Amino acid sequence: MTPQSLAHVNGEIVPINEAKISLLDWGFLHSDATYDVAHVWDGHFFRLDEHVQRYFAGMEKLRMSIPYNETQLTALLLKLVGQSGLRNAYVEMITTRGVPESGSRDPRTCKNQFFAFVVPFVWISQPDQGLHLAISQQQRIPSASVDPTIKNYHWLDLVMGQFEAYDQGAQTAAVVDDKGNIKEGPGFNIFIIKDRQLRTTAKGVLEGITRKTAIQLAQQLGLQVELGEISAQDLRQADEAFATSTAGGIMAITQVDHQVLGRGQIGPLTQQLQDAYWALHSQPKFALEVNYELPL
Amino acid sequence: MTPQSLAHVNGEIVPINEAKISLLDWGFLHSDATYDVAHVWDGHFFRLDEHVQRYFAGMEKLRMSIPYNETQLTALLLKLVGQSGLRNAYVEMITTRGVPESGSRDPRTCKNQFFAFVVPFVWISQPDQGLHLAISQQQRIPSASVDPTIKNYHWLDLVMGQFEAYDQGAQTAAVVDDKGNIKEGPGFNIFIIKDRQLRTTAKGVLEGITRKTAIQLAQQLGLQVELGEISAQDLRQADEAFATSTAGGIMAITQVDHQVLGRGQIGPLTQQLQDAYWALHSQPKFALEVNYELPL
Repeated sequence: MTPQSLAHVNGEIVPINEAKISLLDWGFLHSDATYDVAHVWDGHFFRLDEHVQRYFAGMEKLRMSIPYNETQLTALLLKLVGQSGLRNAYVEMITTRGVPESGSRDPRTCKNQFFAFVVPFVWISQPDQGLHLAISQQQRIPSASVDPTIKNYHWLDLVMGQFEAYDQGAQTAAVVDDKGNIKEGPGFNIFIIKDRQLRTTAKGVLEGITRKTAIQLAQQLGLQVELGEISAQDLRQADEAFATSTAGGIMAITQVDHQVLGRGQIGPLTQQLQDAYWALHSQPKFALEVNYELPL
Repeated sequence: MTPQSLAHVNGEIVPINEAKISLLDWGFLHSDATYDVAHVWDGHFFRLDEHVQRYFAGMEKLRMSIPYNETQLTALLLKLVGQSGLRNAYVEMITTRGVPESGSRDPRTCKNQFFAFVVPFVWISQPDQGLHLAISQQQRIPSASVDPTIKNYHWLDLVMGQFEAYDQGAQTAAVVDDKGNIKEGPGFNIFIIKDRQLRTTAKGVLEGITRKTAIQLAQQLGLQVELGEISAQDLRQADEAFATSTAGGIMAITQVDHQVLGRGQIGPLTQQLQDAYWALHSQPKFALEVNYELPL
């Protein structure tokens, strides 16, 4: 069978092009939703339990629930990927508020909805390439408005930053806070390395699982990691920089605005971390095998 | 024929429960969308041209387009409402970024999608009742992150404010800025009246068409209207206060947190403005008649 993208909608598995959500669901009309994305590499989920835990924590903060516990959800996702046949995949799980009762604007009248989909692995940037990043004027939505530890779809700031980046000939953008400090990019956290010391933004960003993995790997390599602020100047003057995301792992940033970073190619420590990151995918502690032989 | 809710999806008119959007549309996955809502009262659209103009302006700012101009869109909406048979209706028009090319995260590869739907008129609050409003700790997403003059679905701050309000026994919430000034509520602007002078929040809010109408009506009644900041104290000490929204018009606020406002009932100036607001709906300048006799 040819591998194919699939979705889980209303309790059924359907081809991705049939996967739809009601126009009236507040998940769409109010972006009242939370989600998580895990990836499957070489037929194994990577750190799925942590994605699932974060997803359930986000739901709780938004006062949402789904009719599955963590174990049942894990089984459901394994089955979905197994049926897709995709051995390298991007797997998204979503909870939306749902549709309120007719005439009502009370979210408590909604029945929360669950969706999931699996598509081929998504790369923000290929591992052997360097990202050209523009520092945007766009400010990331602050934590006091939307809690960034709840993974959410409030992305207009990131999307507009991305358009700004294209206008400048860059590939992607970093959005900032009201003091101009670097926060994150569309779907990724940002790290800098200066004098063999790593730094990543402490607050006002998603606490990425790839970010956490990069921190752990750096510490295992004997490198110090600081959680703090990254100014635009810090980023421009870094020896190396990289982005972290489930959509691509650890990806070198080699150009910021019109300026080449370091030597303009993937830096030695970034390379070491990237290698260690992919090596981690075969460790039993982090890898959950998908069974592609299950009967339909 | 019984009036019914309808939607316009992919160029076709369908019953509302068949109205769906792709799970992969960035309008959902990144809340990368703009919209507008007009209402129909007694078989006539109210100030539709201004809603349509604002909608097109929002699309331009987000670099989106639809295959209709303002005249064609107006005709499409008139037809949609005509077919629904709904004489008092809530009509939403939506543009989403669309679905990027497979494997791409580049919004420029998306084909923007157009949706519209008509449902029975929605009241945030009945005109003869007073709203009980809670002042939330939740901060409205600032303009530097998402331009509030682009009508958008970034509502998690408003939804969480609404839950806070329910916890306190209130009906709805006002969200604030980082200085604690009142910004807006879920789908409405806020006005206070003190010593026969009106004030509404100048910046960081949607420039509502009902807000504009209320300002114009107040000026016609010889009242001064100030665009400025409203502190929590200003709101609590106001003689009268009201909310403005296409979903209900001019609606009295009669309680703030645990404190009754003014005399705890719809104030005399609010009543005058509300009466004037509904009277305006039969003025030919603002009313566009729906033809309910069109052949299907």
